[in-house]
Order: sequence, then structure tokens, then C-alpha cells
Amino acid sequence: MTNQVRKILDCYRSENPGVLTNLARMLNHGRLAGTGRMLILPVDQGFEHGPARSFAPNPPAYDPAYHFQLAIDAGLNAYASLLGFIEAVAADFAGEIPLILKLNAHDLLHDEKDPLGAQTASVSDALRLGCVAIGYTIYPGTVERRLQYEQLRELVREARAAGLVVVVWSYPRGGGLSKEGETALDVIAYGAQIAALLGAHIIKVKMPTAHLELPEAKKIYEELRIPRATATERVRHVVQSAFNGRRIVLFSGGPKEADEALFAEAHAIRDGGGFGSIVGRNSFQRDKASALRLLDGMVRIYQE
Amino acid sequence: MTNQVRKILDCYRSENPGVLTNLARMLNHGRLAGTGRMLILPVDQGFEHGPARSFAPNPPAYDPAYHFQLAIDAGLNAYASLLGFIEAVAADFAGEIPLILKLNAHDLLHDEKDPLGAQTASVSDALRLGCVAIGYTIYPGTVERRLQYEQLRELVREARAAGLVVVVWSYPRGGGLSKEGETALDVIAYGAQIAALLGAHIIKVKMPTAHLELPEAKKIYEELRIPRATATERVRHVVQSAFNGRRIVLFSGGPKEADEALFAEAHAIRDGGGFGSIVGRNSFQRDKASALRLLDGMVRIYQE
Amino acid sequence: MTNQVRKILDCYRSENPGVLTNLARMLNHGRLAGTGRMLILPVDQGFEHGPARSFAPNPPAYDPAYHFQLAIDAGLNAYASLLGFIEAVAADFAGEIPLILKLNAHDLLHDEKDPLGAQTASVSDALRLGCVAIGYTIYPGTVERRLQYEQLRELVREARAAGLVVVVWSYPRGGGLSKEGETALDVIAYGAQIAALLGAHIIKVKMPTAHLELPEAKKIYEELRIPRATATERVRHVVQSAFNGRRIVLFSGGPKEADEALFAEAHAIRDGGGFGSIVGRNSFQRDKASALRLLDGMVRIYQE
Amino acid sequence: MTNQVRKILDCYRSENPGVLTNLARMLNHGRLAGTGRMLILPVDQGFEHGPARSFAPNPPAYDPAYHFQLAIDAGLNAYASLLGFIEAVAADFAGEIPLILKLNAHDLLHDEKDPLGAQTASVSDALRLGCVAIGYTIYPGTVERRLQYEQLRELVREARAAGLVVVVWSYPRGGGLSKEGETALDVIAYGAQIAALLGAHIIKVKMPTAHLELPEAKKIYEELRIPRATATERVRHVVQSAFNGRRIVLFSGGPKEADEALFAEAHAIRDGGGFGSIVGRNSFQRDKASALRLLDGMVRIYQE
Amino acid sequence: MTNQVRKILDCYRSENPGVLTNLARMLNHGRLAGTGRMLILPVDQGFEHGPARSFAPNPPAYDPAYHFQLAIDAGLNAYASLLGFIEAVAADFAGEIPLILKLNAHDLLHDEKDPLGAQTASVSDALRLGCVAIGYTIYPGTVERRLQYEQLRELVREARAAGLVVVVWSYPRGGGLSKEGETALDVIAYGAQIAALLGAHIIKVKMPTAHLELPEAKKIYEELRIPRATATERVRHVVQSAFNGRRIVLFSGGPKEADEALFAEAHAIRDGGGFGSIVGRNSFQRDKASALRLLDGMVRIYQE
Repeated sequence: MTNQVRKILDCYRSENPGVLTNLARMLNHGRLAGTGRMLILPVDQGFEHGPARSFAPNPPAYDPAYHFQLAIDAGLNAYASLLGFIEAVAADFAGEIPLILKLNAHDLLHDEKDPLGAQTASVSDALRLGCVAIGYTIYPGTVERRLQYEQLRELVREARAAGLVVVVWSYPRGGGLSKEGETALDVIAYGAQIAALLGAHIIKVKMPTAHLELPEAKKIYEELRIPRATATERVRHVVQSAFNGRRIVLFSGGPKEADEALFAEAHAIRDGGGFGSIVGRNSFQRDKASALRLLDGMVRIYQE
Repeated sequence: MTNQVRKILDCYRSENPGVLTNLARMLNHGRLAGTGRMLILPVDQGFEHGPARSFAPNPPAYDPAYHFQLAIDAGLNAYASLLGFIEAVAADFAGEIPLILKLNAHDLLHDEKDPLGAQTASVSDALRLGCVAIGYTIYPGTVERRLQYEQLRELVREARAAGLVVVVWSYPRGGGLSKEGETALDVIAYGAQIAALLGAHIIKVKMPTAHLELPEAKKIYEELRIPRATATERVRHVVQSAFNGRRIVLFSGGPKEADEALFAEAHAIRDGGGFGSIVGRNSFQRDKASALRLLDGMVRIYQE
Repeated sequence: MTNQVRKILDCYRSENPGVLTNLARMLNHGRLAGTGRMLILPVDQGFEHGPARSFAPNPPAYDPAYHFQLAIDAGLNAYASLLGFIEAVAADFAGEIPLILKLNAHDLLHDEKDPLGAQTASVSDALRLGCVAIGYTIYPGTVERRLQYEQLRELVREARAAGLVVVVWSYPRGGGLSKEGETALDVIAYGAQIAALLGAHIIKVKMPTAHLELPEAKKIYEELRIPRATATERVRHVVQSAFNGRRIVLFSGGPKEADEALFAEAHAIRDGGGFGSIVGRNSFQRDKASALRLLDGMVRIYQE
Repeated sequence: MTNQVRKILDCYRSENPGVLTNLARMLNHGRLAGTGRMLILPVDQGFEHGPARSFAPNPPAYDPAYHFQLAIDAGLNAYASLLGFIEAVAADFAGEIPLILKLNAHDLLHDEKDPLGAQTASVSDALRLGCVAIGYTIYPGTVERRLQYEQLRELVREARAAGLVVVVWSYPRGGGLSKEGETALDVIAYGAQIAALLGAHIIKVKMPTAHLELPEAKKIYEELRIPRATATERVRHVVQSAFNGRRIVLFSGGPKEADEALFAEAHAIRDGGGFGSIVGRNSFQRDKASALRLLDGMVRIYQE
Repeated sequence: MTNQVRKILDCYRSENPGVLTNLARMLNHGRLAGTGRMLILPVDQGFEHGPARSFAPNPPAYDPAYHFQLAIDAGLNAYASLLGFIEAVAADFAGEIPLILKLNAHDLLHDEKDPLGAQTASVSDALRLGCVAIGYTIYPGTVERRLQYEQLRELVREARAAGLVVVVWSYPRGGGLSKEGETALDVIAYGAQIAALLGAHIIKVKMPTAHLELPEAKKIYEELRIPRATATERVRHVVQSAFNGRRIVLFSGGPKEADEALFAEAHAIRDGGGFGSIVGRNSFQRDKASALRLLDGMVRIYQE
């Protein structure tokens, strides 16, 4: 075990050996194995945006096998998707790459200001399919967040007892937040803190902007002059907000961005003490050769 | 086992032998046995529309035994109905035809823009009655779809553990969709994708039109010029949307249509890579001789 | 076993011997034993209308023992009531008459257009009290019918597993129906169909009128000229709607009617293929001698 | 066992020996032991009205031990209170007086026209604390009464299986009733009937007035000239409404009343066939000597 | 065991030895061991207010280890926090200080007049992490308090069965209370009473003001001239309202206050018969040396 991995596992010393083992499996897999950094491919846009918006730009991506192979070929740490997508080909790729089963999902056929989502799979499904982790999305700030937190609490309990890692996507939303506020620094940091307090082992947030949303928080940020001008500073603040770096925080961008922008983000994540990236649409909505080039570039940044 | 059946079963390699066995039972039953195509008789209109609207046009159909016998005589792959209708005569037809127990239903005595339906039977009922599969209808796009997805999740888990196949009727509905939008190509494909992601083994959708409903999706369809002019092209797109053909997709028409229209649809389904049809009202709301003629015509198309 | 009873039990061949035994107990009890027809005394008006409206017209009826004795003395097939009323004297009449425990009830202290009712007893209560059946009222057409159907589904499952018969009172109601529509022929037939599909062994409906309520259904009734002018024709249509006579359908009148009207109804029920009557207020809201005369008259009609 | 107690227990012959034993423990305890009449001290006002309104008029009553000792010193049949109040000193008074654990409560910090209350303790708590009975308040006539009835149903089932007696406080309330209507004779009798039908062994109602509230019921009371001029007649009617005297009905007054008024009520309860009183605020909101005098007076009336 | 501790444990004689043991562990830990008084550090503001508002004023506090060490170094009786915060370092501090796992939390990303909160951890988590107690916040006076009380009831039952102490934070809130009313003497006393009745072993309330909020209560306070002019008198009244001193009541201030104000409060708590303080933001939102000075001052007051 490398020192980098050992140092991370030490932050999870209250967990049972099952959870530590599965966490180590992710940290020790792929081209970033042993570096303490992670790059994960998530594919749940088919549910969120429908199949054509998700896969028509790169039609081979309609096939669930495509994504397993992409993650393997790119040497990523793990692949995350929904029940049907994983189940369709899990037996074909048994043991080839660590799997994260996303247990809830939300569709936009009926759009809502305060999304809730539905639990669409169980911890027993994750075990049956050979996964190392469960994934769950929370929307802090929505009216019904209580239902999500309580559903997550029970899944965290079950997952941990089964030795599975818990990955929480924390996306603040809801009528009380402006659109810009959803990626404001104070809001993203708050979302990371909530996920950590709920027992997440790995936290996934969006890259924060320098905007501040909540009036009471804004006062503190300005009064104490918390640095937030650069992406690196903002990453550092979010990592600090996740138990001072004791929890793995991963960052994602949004829809299609230029490769250079993504590389710049990766540099900031690395330099700010972040643990890596989750790259979905930017990797599977282009042809495979181009995707491998992009992911290779990111891997190299995180290997430094 | 024929190659066609083996090829389909290979798409379900993550499933346990119980599920594979019951899936094979349907694929290997009736006149389409071994072809990899399916023709299923569903009868749940008594709940949805009431008995007179459903059965008065062909009074022998008031009797649950009529439908079992019709499906057997026509050489179909399976018969699907609700608890009471199957239970009334299941012992009389034990082992004669694969059965699908529909586990939820919705009545129109109180009509709603966002239908929800009720779970009216259980996985244990399906086992007790000798069924090979459970059926469940989801209404993606409705306000309360979360309740449906979560009810289905639990039933999928129970069914799979019991070796039963899961058939999902996916009917997008709700206040956010226009009437025309309910059968729009983008919406039907989206519904198929959701059903597949929820773990359906067999997906039943309506024949899509060339209409596009969701603005964000429309942009993609038009920009990428996804073919949708012919029924065959639309079927091909829906099958692609169900994991690139890795999930069995069946199509249905609506209320009474002329035989020639139904035959044309069957040709399109076959040529577009669809796996077959579900034919309800068009078969039991006419006299039996006429129904057998219609179903014979469809069988012949799918046998080609 | 008489041929009439055997013919009825043959319609329930999918049930376990426990259910068949308890069904036979009802069919073979009292003065109509072996005829295949049934006369049942139900007493749940104390909950629905309060004690004074229910029992003050015949004060001995305040005592739960009165009703057991009335049903026994009249030679009826069964007695149906709520938890407290049965429990109060069940030990005193152990084995004297088949009992149906009504598991839900609704009070009018707070009147509602869309009644829901509450489950007030359990299958285990029915077993503990020596009952042969459970009873449950559904209100098809109400906003919350889903909750009722799902509660009933679970009770049907438990009851059947325990060998108990399921009797469903099907009373369409709700904001979408006119007052006259609640007893319209199409609505009553629809209610009988729903109860049968939900797994009811015995269905209790109100005597339908010739009125038609639902526009879509009305078209069919008129186009196909479904006979509905006489009570006998209407009974025949409802029985047909309950799986073509494969399910026992019982009819009830409303509040106090003249004996001659009740006798005429019984004739129509008998001639239309109905299986008998449920007679509540018309029997216990008069003095016992008069009640016995009325019930004797009805028994004689059904014995023919 | 006295004849009076035996006669009462005979009305509960469907119950198991555990329930009969605990019922006998209450009937055979204190100065009214063996008379078939009961006097109970209930203390749940701390939750309903807050501590100062409840106990400041007699500060020793802040202490939960005070009430146990008062009930014991007055020779009452039982003491009823909420979880914390009983638990605080139950071990100190183990076996000294039969205990009734109230399982639900309602606070007025947020006042509501349709109160619902919360279940604040369980049957297992009652057993753990050595109680002979559980208590539960229902509010017939409120919008959410279904939740209460269903919660009570489950508690009744658990309590009976554990051999505990069930005491139901039946307080009609809600937007459909006038303030005066809450104690109208027809409403109180209806509430007693509902409690009895739900399986209550002992029913607690308020003393009814001669007012009639429900239009449909009023017609019957007036048409049949049901006597209601005197308190004795009204008690008799309520007892009749509780299964013709087969269920123990206890009466309570409201806030502080003069002793003479309470004695007059006790006479009416006794003469009308009531089984006794529940006396809360009138006994613990005065000094102990005065309380003992009042309770002694009531005991003497019930001993006659 | 000191007399002070024995006297307190005697108030909990109905509890099992497991609960008594864990209560003793808290009373016998730290610099106040054996005095019968307690000082507890609670840290759940990260969830309630977000990380920056909570920890930026003293950045080392972002780290969960900081708070364990602060509580240990200050010689406090116990440390209370949420799942993630305790779990992150519990293994590192195993057995160093008694732990209270807060089982519910509420975030202000979506602010509400009637907060509800979510259960974010379980009794099994508390056991797994070596805690001696669970914590739970109720908001008496809010619309949904029923859900809280019922969730708490079940947790109390589980915790007690597992030998864990139950600490209830009682914060009256909701649309029926003015802002000033939330800390009114009558309201705080009412909140303490409710927590005690729900089975809390330790009750945490805010320091009450002399304001009176509820009209019915105000009449009593003024009529009986209940003393409330000084903080000491108000503490005495609240302690009396918690079963006349039979339940441990702890007090907290609000946001940052001057040390002298906090010392004055501690004097009042001690002199009024209170059992100690819970000090959160006032201790961890300043540098550690200053925090230790403050806590030392408070310990000395409670040691007197």
C-alpha cells in the first residue's frame, strides 16, 4: 500500500475492514492506483435527460458495454451507473473495474424546481452485482430534502454493514436558491459539509464559482476575507469544509467544455487538495478516441 | 435452444437461472417459439375502462376463461392479466400458457391528468398462480412517478429473487406533456430508457409518432438528423434507446384499428428490430374467428 | 355437497382448501344451505350513522347479542359486523353461525364527498374470533381509492393464506359521480368488476337503476342495446360483469323499504342469476317478529 | 369475586385470561373494589396545557410522585398518565396501584381545530412499567381520524395479545362540530359507540348535555322522544349506546367545578347505570386534603 | 459514587442498569465528575448554519478532531455531535470522553417557519461508535411536531433497550409563536415538560426570559405571581417543570456572548437548581486558549 493511500485510509479508521477494503480497491485501481487521486466515469444522464440528449452525439454510447470498456481503457478508478445499465453487462465485465451503483435517480419528463428523485435500486442489488460502492444524490435546499436524508441514512447503514463504500452526489437546489447560487462557493461548501455529516465516504460536488449566495454566510466570508478568487482557493475551501480534508471530495464540471478548460480545472483541483474528478458527459458525448485523449490528459495531471 | 433465443438470453447474463428459465419459457412457447419474437395477449381493460366498454362488443370475453383459450388457440407466447381474472381460471389452464400477472392497475371512475394507479397484487401471488412474470405500468412524467418507481424497485427485487421475469408497461403521461406528446418519438424512447434503467427485462411501449415533444430533446433530434420519418426508423430508435437492443421491447397500438394497419405496424416492428407486439383490444373486442385470423396474420409476419 | 354448491366451488378452484372450506360453510349454513344462494345480515351502521339512528327504532338492537340471535333464528347464511360488536358476544355464540369480520369502517361525524374509511381490525382478529371471512368496503371513484385498493390487496393476501373468504362491499362514490350515478347500471357493474379483479370471493353491490353515468360507457350501452329496462336484466348484467357469473354477487337495497318492494327485488335477483341478498337496516330496524317475517319471505323466494 | 365483578367480566368473555385478569385488578382495587364501579385519576394535562396551567395552582403536583400517592391515599381503582410521568416514579410505587399508560398526547403550543395528537409510548413500555392497561384518545369527527383509528387498531391488537386492558378516551371534535356540539348527547353517544366498535374495553366520555348536534340524528331523537332532560337519562342513553351496557363507560367533567356539582354528576352516573368517573383537574388542582375530601365523597356515592 | 450522583440516579430508578451505567459515565467524567453537574460541548452547527458560519471564525474547528480534543482538554462531561463528525475520528479517541450521537438535524439552506429536521443516524450507529447517549431535537409548537414526537418515541424505545441515555433538545418554534415567545418562560417550561413526558433522561433548553407568550398560561403566572424576575427564579421554575427536579435540565445561551454574561448565567443555573450548561458556539468559535479559559471559569462555578 502506498503512503498516499494509507494516509487516506487512516481518515476512515472508524470503518469496518469491509469498507476499507472496497475503498482501497478504488484507490488502487487504474492508472491513478496508489496516488490517492481518483477519476470516475458516471453515466446516469439517460434517466435525467433521456437517451437521445445523452447518447445521440456519440451513438455507440447507447450500449451499456461501451461505458464499461471506456472506463477500463482509460484506466479510471471506477465506473458509476444505474441499475439497468450496470446489470445489462455486469456479468461480461466481472471484476474488470470497481463499480458504483447509483441508488436514486430523477427524470426531467416532469421538471420541478425542488427535485426529489426516486430510489431505484437497493444495497442488495449492489452486492448482487459485485459493486464496491453505492451512490446517492441529495438536493440540499429542496423542500423534501428530509425524505432524501432519511432514505440515505438507511442506505448508509445498510451499505456500511455490508462493507460497501458510500458516494454522495451533493447538489444544492430548490426554490430558496438562485440558479447562480447552486454553484456559489458558500453553497457548494455547505453541500459538502452536509454530505460528510450524513456519513458519506466520498463526496461529489460541482466546481464552485466565486459567487456567494446566503446572506448570513456572505457576511462571514467577507468579514474574514476567506480567499475565493481562484479555482484553487475555492477547491481548498471546499476540501476544508469536508472535515478539513478527512473526506474524499471529487469535483465535476457541467455540460460539454473545452479540453483546456477541463485541464485547468484538474490543475486547480489537484493544487487545492482535491482528490480528483468525476467526468461524465465530457467523456462519453464525444468519440472514443477523443475521450481517451481527454482522460489521458487528466490522468497525467493527477499523476503529478 | 435456437440461436435467436440464445442471443437474447445472452443479453440477460447477469440474471439468475430462474429468470433465464422463465424468459426462455416465454420465448420458446407458441407459434413464435424459438424465433426470438413475441406476441402477447394483455387483458386489463376491465379495470381501466370498466366491463361494458371492454367486453360488451364481444360478450364471451366477459369470461376470464375466454382469454386463456384465445391466447392458447392463437399460439401466443404469453397471456397477461390482473389478479382476479387470472386467479378465476388459473387452475383450469395450469401449465397451458406462460402467465404474466399485472401487479398494478388504474381505474377511470375518477379520471386524472396525472394517473398513479394502485398495486393490486404481489410477487407471492404470481408465484402462487404459476406465473412466469410480473407486469407493472409506470407513468413517467407524472407528479407521483416517484411512488411508482419505488414500488416497482421493490417488486423488481422480489421478482428477480424469485426467478420471475419483469415486464414494464411504460406510458409517459402527466400535466407536463401534451396529448400528442404522449406518443412522441422522444418521449416514447425516453420511457423505454427509464424502464430499462429500472431493471425491466421486457419493455412495452406504444408505437411512436414522428412528433417531438421536449424542447431540449427536439434540438438534438433535429441537429443530428435522427431518422424518424418511417415507423421502421422510429422502432429502430426506440430499440436503440433500450440499451442498443439488449432489452426486449414490445409495441402496442391503441384502440380498434383495421387489420391492414396492424399488419403494417408489425412489419415496421420486425424490420426496425423490435421484438414483437402486445395486442389487447384489437384481439378480444371482436369475435374469436376474426381474432384468430388477425393474430395468425401477425404471427406469420413475425415468423418471416 | 349439493350440485349447486359444487358448481359454485368449481369457480374457485384456484383457491386453497381452507378458503373452499369456509366458503362451503357459508353456502351450507341456514335455511338456504345447499341452494347456492345466500342471505346475510350485516350490522355496521352504528359506526356509519351512530347508535341512535341505527338502533333507536328497535331498541333491543343496541345489544350485539340481538343480531347474532336474529341471524340464527332467521336461518341466514352468515352475520357480518365490526370488531367490537362481534367480539362482545362471539364467545357466547361460538360456532352458531358463520361470521364475517368487517375490517374497515367510515363514520359520518365528519362527512366527505370522497370517503376513505379506516381499517379497524385485522385478519388475525378474524381468526381469533372464529370468523369464516373478512369484509372490506371499497369506494371506487374516490380520490384516495389507491390507499383502499392497496390496503385491501394486503388483507386479501393475508386472508387467503389463512383460509378466510374475502367479501368486498363495492360502493362507487366521489366527486366525479353524481348522486344518481352511484347506483347507475354502468357504475355498479364497473364496481363489481373492480372488486372481482382485486380478488374478492364474494361481491356486495347496491341494486342498480337503469341510469347510465359515464359518457364513454353510455355510448356502448346504447350502441349495443344492452338490456337494462327491468331489474332482472340489470342483475344479469352485473353478474355477467363479475366474471360471467364466476364470482358470487350479492345485492342490497338502501334504507327502509316496504316488504313488497324487497320481495320484488329478491325475485329479480334470483331470476337474473344473482346469488342472494344482504339485508341490514330493513331487518334490524323493525321489531323481531316483523323482521323474521320479512326474512322468511326472502328465504322462500331464494329457495324456489 | 363479587357478583358485580363477575357480571362485568362476563361481558368480556371473548377476551383472553390476561385481559380479564388485568380488568379484574382494576375492578378489585381500592375502596370501590368489588362494587363494579370505578374511580380513576388521570394526569396528562402537563402535555395538553403545559406545566404551569396544570400544576401551579397546587405546586406539589409538579412532582409525579404526588399523583401516585394521591390515587393510593384516596383508594382509587387506577392511575393514568403519560410515559415520562409514570416512568419517573413507577419503580418507587411498584404494585401499589393499577397503572394505565396513556399512549398518545396532544399539545396546545400549536392549537388546531382538528387535533390529531402523537403516539408517545408503546405497548412494550406499558409492559415494562408494570401497567395493567393502555390508554388512547380518539377525536371522532376530525379530518385525520383515520390515522388515529388505524394507530389504535394496531395498539389494541398488541395490547390484547399482551393481556392488557384498552381504555379509550373518545372526544368528538373537528371543523364539522360546533363547540356546543362536542358535548351534545347524540355526539357523545356516537363517540362511545365508535370506541366500543374499535375494541375498547373501557370508554371514557364527557358528561353529555341535552343539546343535539347532528341534523339526521336529531330527527330520530325527537321523533322517538328519546329521554334526555336529566343527566341520569343522558347517562343511561350513553351506556345503552355502548353495547347496551356491555362495555364499561366512565364519565368526566371539565375544568374546575364545585364539589356539589361533581357529587350531583356522580349520582346521575350511578343512577343512569354508568360505571364511574375519571377525575383529573378537579382533584389535583386543589390541595391534597381538599382533594381527598372530594374523592371520598364520590367514593361514598358509588359505594351505595 | 458520590451522594450527589446517587441522588440523581435515584430519580431514574425505573431505568435498566445499562441506562444507569451510561448516565453515571457522564456524571462521573471530567472535572465535574461526582458533583451532579454537567458541562457538555455540542457541535451540530455545521449542518444547521453551514461550515463557514460555524468554523471560519476559528479555522482549526473545521477538523472534527479539534472538538474531541477541546472537550477532553477542558475536562467536560461529554461531547455531542452528528454522525459524520463523530465517525470521522471516533476510533482515534476511543474511550477518551463520553459521546452523544445527535440523531436528527436541520439545515437552513431552505429556511422554514416550522422546521422539521431529518433523522440522520440510528441507535445502532450510536452503539457502533461507542456512544453513551443519543440526542434528538424536538420543535414543540410546529405543525409537524407529531412526526418528531413519534420518531423520538421509537428512538427512545430502542435507545433505552440498548442501555443508552436519551438527551432531548427542546426548542419551541412554529407559526403560532412570536420570535420573542420562543424563549418566553412559559414556553421554555412547557418545552421542558413535553421532553420529560416523552421520556427524555436529560433535557436541554434555552435560558428563558421573563416574557410570557401563551395567553392562557400568562393568566396563571400573573394570578399566582410565579416569580420570574431573575434568571435564578426562571431556572428554578423550569427545573420544577421537569418533574420537580427529577430530570436533569441543562441550559444553553445563544450566539456569541461575553464571558461575564456566560458566568452570570452559570451562577443563575447553579443557584436555581439547574444541572449545568451546554456550550457550543461560545466555546468553539474562538481560539482554543480563550475557549479553555471560558470553560474553566464555568467549571469552577459549577464546582462550588
